[in-house]
Amino acid sequence: MSGPPPAVAAVRSAVRRCLVPLPADTTVLVACSGGADSLALAGATAFEAPRLGLRAGAVTVDHGLQEGSAERAGKVAATLTGLGLEPVVVRTVEVTGPGGPEGAARTARHTVLAEEIAARSPAVALLGHTLDDQAETVLLGLARGSGARSLAGMAPRNGPLLRPMLDLDRGTVRAACGLMGLEPWEDPHNEDPRFARSRVRHESLPTLERTLGPGVTAALARTAALLRADAEALDVLAADLHAEAEADGGGLRAAVLAEAPEALRTRVLRRTAIDAGCPAGALTARHVREVDRLVVDWRGQSHIDLPGGVRARRVAGLIRFDR
Amino acid sequence: MSGPPPAVAAVRSAVRRCLVPLPADTTVLVACSGGADSLALAGATAFEAPRLGLRAGAVTVDHGLQEGSAERAGKVAATLTGLGLEPVVVRTVEVTGPGGPEGAARTARHTVLAEEIAARSPAVALLGHTLDDQAETVLLGLARGSGARSLAGMAPRNGPLLRPMLDLDRGTVRAACGLMGLEPWEDPHNEDPRFARSRVRHESLPTLERTLGPGVTAALARTAALLRADAEALDVLAADLHAEAEADGGGLRAAVLAEAPEALRTRVLRRTAIDAGCPAGALTARHVREVDRLVVDWRGQSHIDLPGGVRARRVAGLIRFDR
Repeated sequence: MSGPPPAVAAVRSAVRRCLVPLPADTTVLVACSGGADSLALAGATAFEAPRLGLRAGAVTVDHGLQEGSAERAGKVAATLTGLGLEPVVVRTVEVTGPGGPEGAARTARHTVLAEEIAARSPAVALLGHTLDDQAETVLLGLARGSGARSLAGMAPRNGPLLRPMLDLDRGTVRAACGLMGLEPWEDPHNEDPRFARSRVRHESLPTLERTLGPGVTAALARTAALLRADAEALDVLAADLHAEAEADGGGLRAAVLAEAPEALRTRVLRRTAIDAGCPAGALTARHVREVDRLVVDWRGQSHIDLPGGVRARRVAGLIRFDR
Repeated sequence: MSGPPPAVAAVRSAVRRCLVPLPADTTVLVACSGGADSLALAGATAFEAPRLGLRAGAVTVDHGLQEGSAERAGKVAATLTGLGLEPVVVRTVEVTGPGGPEGAARTARHTVLAEEIAARSPAVALLGHTLDDQAETVLLGLARGSGARSLAGMAPRNGPLLRPMLDLDRGTVRAACGLMGLEPWEDPHNEDPRFARSRVRHESLPTLERTLGPGVTAALARTAALLRADAEALDVLAADLHAEAEADGGGLRAAVLAEAPEALRTRVLRRTAIDAGCPAGALTARHVREVDRLVVDWRGQSHIDLPGGVRARRVAGLIRFDR
């Protein structure tokens, strides 16, 4: 007997690996836009979850951003129900707020997912991001230039949000969608060059594939996984250093910090400055480097002014942040 | 009295910051191709070094890759002598060996520099890489997708090789060259799309600047500095873990590794596999992840075959690498 086509097998197997460790009473909710990626995810989940004794439903969000979006959401819901998913939840959201339309839509989706997960606890949501989405996220992070965290991309697991397809390329996932007989609907925003992600997808990555060689997309995704592990390790070790350096009356003991590697010192200083009231987005690597000179290049400098009206000073061997 | 134009002041000041910590008997050698970047560096060094009591010379390398390259090298040497640099050394190299013409030329240059430094000890060489070169190096590393090290770009200091201009953009440095009255010669290889770096310079980076927003070049260079600090910290911490995990009769104690963060475990495993004979270039993140499963997901797996005929096994609580 022949098994499913390789693309379908690949998606199912990725979903299965993700579902196997879940407790038996978990409800699995597929977050589905109706696009090829999340439809393939829904198809594979509808196939795998029952075999593992798990209940699988889906959530589709109507952002109300295009004419006919409600009707569209209804059709997606019908497809999901046809796959045997239950419950299938359609939620309508209003896309407003900060971060531009892309950011606001994402925030609205995540709020809805969090609510649906909470209502069915224990529950998880599966998100349809692929290796290509991961590479795009890394490039978008690269433009910010703020270190390992901004290059670490999306987590395979972040609380109840799971991304089973981060190791699968978009071509495989789309092929699987077609082979499952599912008809996708593509959000026109994905093609709209006003959106940064769309420009990255249609211009930046193809140029890099051409100039740096094929395989750049996979290399970016691998980079994300490695840097995510690095960032997690450094955050844990910096928390240890923070605890060790903190003086009883407040402030950080410079002598303790000075013994630690730069990558840990600067993380502790950055964290402490933010806790003291510096807006994270305004605190640059250059600011942190100046504060670090109070630790490793101390020559009686005066205070250093940081964003948010925070001042860093060295007093009696302690680094203090005050407003 | 008015000072030098800002671009000249910026290059001189970067060179001065780099020279100030050097001992008084150090000979400073500018590595100069005759291109605008290294000529500006030579001009600034000729200005600053005598004011700090340092002797400054230069080395120019004739790669023999183009017609008239010897004559060209002679002209560069004359310019350098005219700046007051002494000694000015012209070295002819044969560009052969692995790594393609770009790699082989770089290796030949570095060998020559190492020889000239050794002959004048204590001596350092100044290299003319700018912020733009750093961004290009990060992108080239990104295509390899092998973590923080490959994204960390070039070091501001690596033994006796110093790069004073890594924080200066190419536009400033080229402007300084012109303002110093120096006439650069550009290596036609820099424009040749057969070379990866040239494609990155003329296609990849301009596309990223257009699609991700201006400032990508600076963001890539900032990223390099942050990831270099991360990589250094993680390497030091991994060496500590290695020493702690190593068993008396050889092998790594799995229980010790299992307590450590993934980023440290995988560095120790990678290092040990390479020491056991795995070729570094062939050992992928996937290989290392499989070996790591012997530590954190041990279910009686058999051995894992690694490149170079090395086998990783878990025996009696120890991770062993044997050929």
